[in-house]
Amino acid sequence: MQKAQLTISSKTYSAWSLRGWLLCKLAGLDFVEVPVENDASNRAELLLLSPSVLVPRLTHEEASVWDTLAIAEYLNECFPEAGMMPENRIARAHCRSVSGEIHSGFTNLRSALPMNLKIVHESFPVFSGARPDIERIETIWHECLSKYGGPFLFGKKPTVADAMYAPVATRFITYAVGVSPESAAYCRTIADWAPMKEWIAAAKAEPEELEELDVEF
Amino acid sequence: MQKAQLTISSKTYSAWSLRGWLLCKLAGLDFVEVPVENDASNRAELLLLSPSVLVPRLTHEEASVWDTLAIAEYLNECFPEAGMMPENRIARAHCRSVSGEIHSGFTNLRSALPMNLKIVHESFPVFSGARPDIERIETIWHECLSKYGGPFLFGKKPTVADAMYAPVATRFITYAVGVSPESAAYCRTIADWAPMKEWIAAAKAEPEELEELDVEF
Repeated sequence: MQKAQLTISSKTYSAWSLRGWLLCKLAGLDFVEVPVENDASNRAELLLLSPSVLVPRLTHEEASVWDTLAIAEYLNECFPEAGMMPENRIARAHCRSVSGEIHSGFTNLRSALPMNLKIVHESFPVFSGARPDIERIETIWHECLSKYGGPFLFGKKPTVADAMYAPVATRFITYAVGVSPESAAYCRTIADWAPMKEWIAAAKAEPEELEELDVEF
Repeated sequence: MQKAQLTISSKTYSAWSLRGWLLCKLAGLDFVEVPVENDASNRAELLLLSPSVLVPRLTHEEASVWDTLAIAEYLNECFPEAGMMPENRIARAHCRSVSGEIHSGFTNLRSALPMNLKIVHESFPVFSGARPDIERIETIWHECLSKYGGPFLFGKKPTVADAMYAPVATRFITYAVGVSPESAAYCRTIADWAPMKEWIAAAKAEPEELEELDVEF
């Protein structure tokens, strides 16, 4: 049986790749990374406006799964012992709701503050259209952290929801977004999470291949 | 135990409401519909740009689930005998991938051709930016229909994927979008699906309350 493969793009810029990769780590999957070429077809994904068919894509046994939430559900089915979702069914429904919300929404935040793990800003003008997104995300985080006790969204262990919001936590840090002390603490929890440290270190070691990317918003 | 409730908005315009409602029908859930007020907070959802926290929202036993895919996974867990997903795990991964793709993508299609079940156009100028979305959707449909034999995307019975693509099928019909014979046949399958007929009849009977909506794209 061939080893599982996860196709990803830039570790510096691709938030969807990061989510898929974190999900594989959460599942305890033994996988190899396959980089996708940074060509035009991949550009929308790199700009984080929407996930693409290309990345992240998981090939495992006979299955080819190419949507981030589909990867989460697929892995959760294959590796139930990994505890990728909360055990309690009501909490699990909550976890799926907040994971679904970041999957389909927050486009203003995603376009105004694209993930870039190489640059930390001391201050950054946040497009006013992104403000409601930031407020909604803080509401989601506060509800989870107060209900399940933190430090991760659904308690002591990271779940699918943390993988989904991890690229938001990095944005709040790198763009110096003013957030509540609770949100800031959660961002640090994500930044200190072992797989995130591994990903961020790899991103910083990546060559600057996107400099000539003609970014349009 | 209180009966399950599904909060939805306009049956004429709200594609996300339609998806959530079809999922409840697929699950065989006994539920009551709760209409949400068409106020400003609900406007983005009505314009189909993204689902909202408000609709669709399912309240069932102790759970409150507010994202369309989260509703699908929650109901599939509660009612495994309903067969909302394909039985084969590889087909199920495929079903989740295409369902995830419509959940997070196709924003050009959604904004260029908003769902409107009251009006059928004999012809309609399709914004060129929506063309790649239409082509990608036809590719998805063709792959499913040829692989699983139709008439629904994953074979003889409707699944979560059909609920997710149903509002696209209605758009292809109401906007007279030129599609392949296979795609046109699938659109008819959806239009003839009993719960769709029930929804469309209810949409046509809805008062025109959105006429003064200040639509911005």
